[in-house]
Amino acid sequence: MRDALVAAAFRLFLERGYEQTTVDDIVALAGVGRRSFFRYFPSKEDVVFPDHERCLADMTAFLTASGKDHEPVRRVCDAARLVLLMYAENPSFSVQRYRLTKQVPGLRAYELSVVWRYERALAEYLRGRFAGRPDGNLRADVIAAAVVAAHNNALRSWLRSDGRGDASATVDHALGYVQSAFGASPAVPETTAPTAPAPPADEQPEDVVVVVSRRGAPLWRVVQEIETTLGQGRPSPQ
Amino acid sequence: MRDALVAAAFRLFLERGYEQTTVDDIVALAGVGRRSFFRYFPSKEDVVFPDHERCLADMTAFLTASGKDHEPVRRVCDAARLVLLMYAENPSFSVQRYRLTKQVPGLRAYELSVVWRYERALAEYLRGRFAGRPDGNLRADVIAAAVVAAHNNALRSWLRSDGRGDASATVDHALGYVQSAFGASPAVPETTAPTAPAPPADEQPEDVVVVVSRRGAPLWRVVQEIETTLGQGRPSPQ
Repeated sequence: MRDALVAAAFRLFLERGYEQTTVDDIVALAGVGRRSFFRYFPSKEDVVFPDHERCLADMTAFLTASGKDHEPVRRVCDAARLVLLMYAENPSFSVQRYRLTKQVPGLRAYELSVVWRYERALAEYLRGRFAGRPDGNLRADVIAAAVVAAHNNALRSWLRSDGRGDASATVDHALGYVQSAFGASPAVPETTAPTAPAPPADEQPEDVVVVVSRRGAPLWRVVQEIETTLGQGRPSPQ
Repeated sequence: MRDALVAAAFRLFLERGYEQTTVDDIVALAGVGRRSFFRYFPSKEDVVFPDHERCLADMTAFLTASGKDHEPVRRVCDAARLVLLMYAENPSFSVQRYRLTKQVPGLRAYELSVVWRYERALAEYLRGRFAGRPDGNLRADVIAAAVVAAHNNALRSWLRSDGRGDASATVDHALGYVQSAFGASPAVPETTAPTAPAPPADEQPEDVVVVVSRRGAPLWRVVQEIETTLGQGRPSPQ
């Protein structure tokens, strides 16, 4: 019945326009009563985004099930991929909805509120993981926003291509950019957990040393700096 | 008259609640007609955010007036500071509105749409600056979202402190984090313009070389890599 309501609603939205379609029209086409509609959807807007509540619940469950060994930035990227999967499950429906949402300001506003809820779910998880660290909340909010923006940039480009092409590869590339920016941020060095993407299983995890030098610095100064840095990281003999 | 309408509206919102206040109540208290209200504000929601349109226009003008020599990430951070200035102009009004917005879902939705417009203004500017570069649009969207998230994290913490404390310093710190993350991103090396924050006026701008090495690498390999990198960047004799 839920699917039938969504199908009837979209048929009418495309035929008559979203604003010109009433809930009465939808239930008449689906052959059910108004109460059945409102049992599934609080409002006409909700029938346009029938799967976001489930996806938000899945995302929250996924993040709640995280362990201490999950690298946090990677974990929120994986959580964001759940949203992509929902869209990719039914490309033609997702493309129809994308076009509809672009045309109807009320649906744009609704979508912004949904996006905000995803972003908060990611940020809350990161705030927990970064608790007690300098700028933990700031980092959590910024990284969550960056992940959502990267995901949505990739998702929109896939939707604009009418759902053709490899959505996963596009999103992976976009999320890779965020991981590279925040995985080893020079501003907030990680001391208790690596933020760089985990190495493949057949590689030993190794520390990474980053040397930043002005081009004008004499080479001996750079070498000295490297020796000092490498020396600090090695186990002390005593 | 515009200020009188805002003052009357906020007095009633605080006394009776936002939902319980009508436009008729507001114009009655301000001593003007309904048409005067709608000359200034398209809806009751708009009176809650009377300065955002002006601020959006200021931000767009600021970005349009940018030159090629403005470092783009720094420039969008400076543009975001215009929003802070608007809030800091009238701390008690900003704090009242913050509390009101938290309580009224309709205002939260309105605020999200305003934030989205700021984010798009920043992203459009960055898309122009990054045009033709690999992942230009992706970078633009992600950096705009990160700047907005950092700004809003700082703004909210200032509003939660009832507008006490140094709002500018808080926002500068938050935006500094974004600049450090994206000013010299290892994923997308800058070749045509520096993204690192501009050096102080009394320093010569210099390229920065970043060498990433596994800790296990022999030192000679690291030195060789530095020499190669430095050599590539130097002017060729021919």
